[in-house]
Amino acid sequence: MLKLYYAPGTCALATHIALEEAGAPYEAVRLDFGSQAQRSPEYLVVNPKGRVPALVTESGTLTETPGLLLFVAQRFPDAELAPLSDPFALAQVQEFNSYLCSTVHVAHAHGRRGARWADDAAAIEAMKRKVPATMTECFDLIERKLLKGPWVMGEHYTICDPYLFTIASWLEGDRVDTGKLPRVMEHRRHMLARPAVQKAVAAEGTQIG
Amino acid sequence: MLKLYYAPGTCALATHIALEEAGAPYEAVRLDFGSQAQRSPEYLVVNPKGRVPALVTESGTLTETPGLLLFVAQRFPDAELAPLSDPFALAQVQEFNSYLCSTVHVAHAHGRRGARWADDAAAIEAMKRKVPATMTECFDLIERKLLKGPWVMGEHYTICDPYLFTIASWLEGDRVDTGKLPRVMEHRRHMLARPAVQKAVAAEGTQIG
Repeated sequence: MLKLYYAPGTCALATHIALEEAGAPYEAVRLDFGSQAQRSPEYLVVNPKGRVPALVTESGTLTETPGLLLFVAQRFPDAELAPLSDPFALAQVQEFNSYLCSTVHVAHAHGRRGARWADDAAAIEAMKRKVPATMTECFDLIERKLLKGPWVMGEHYTICDPYLFTIASWLEGDRVDTGKLPRVMEHRRHMLARPAVQKAVAAEGTQIG
Repeated sequence: MLKLYYAPGTCALATHIALEEAGAPYEAVRLDFGSQAQRSPEYLVVNPKGRVPALVTESGTLTETPGLLLFVAQRFPDAELAPLSDPFALAQVQEFNSYLCSTVHVAHAHGRRGARWADDAAAIEAMKRKVPATMTECFDLIERKLLKGPWVMGEHYTICDPYLFTIASWLEGDRVDTGKLPRVMEHRRHMLARPAVQKAVAAEGTQIG
């Protein structure tokens, strides 16, 4: 039995959805970020980074969304969540997910976690102010170039889709004009029609859109 | 014939080394960041993100280091650069590389590319000031927990090693006390003893350490 540590509103939703899509046996454990549970001594034993997601497997604990998503796809191959045997196609999947984790998630994080990168209160406010512009720039590239449609990689649903859906769920909070992202919004609608997505979203109690 | 676009001193060195390790047929094309060649109309056709690395393959162009490294490992399996058929072990590789791209590289980038995340000159200076602390924190975790030794994943050299080596080559410039990172520095020495590393480093004309 796998165990997923998550908190609502975080990127852990991507792995949560992927586990549902895969029909994986798993338990989801909610951490209360309000009481800083991710920094508790008990949790730091699970994940020394003090963040979510973390996935406890039969072989050990994994963190970092692109790694977790690849694990789910490869561990449950019948779900066909990634083109595992095609080096170019699999690299495209990891390319997209790397862009989400290293550029898009990072752009978003400057609105809430600026203290990671500066100590000065005015600097943290300056970072917050730029989030709508940086997130708009990232999603403009996704809208125009990266999202093939209907799914990220085209006709086949992959581990890119729950990850894009999760990060796109932050757009309204980041004050991005979603009216200019019709293809991303259509992707959201397609995602919300999937039972696995509905189940993970309901379990987390997350409000999308 | 693969074509790798790179600039000296960037994370493209990781893929450059991996291509050498794999014995891949490739051509390395240097972009002159001084003249903003990564923003030229010609290059934006290759990579709309305007960054390096980009790898032109027989199937199309790939970007983002964790995707490129996985591609090299899977496309040239005889080099055994990743545990491709073990879902947990491969996820650990992607976990480590995701941490490098989304946390460590991002921490470093605040010293030179702060304008990505704030428009205010004082805020950009505040970000620069914090780089030694954030990079020290990242590498403390790598030193204590993530680097198994002698290679990142233990006894087997993988695509994590050129990536760690590349990002660790920025430590002195980021004013991190490498005296407190003996295992990371030992990893650097092991890397510099490999012919593939020597060849890529010499081709880029990069000074390490």
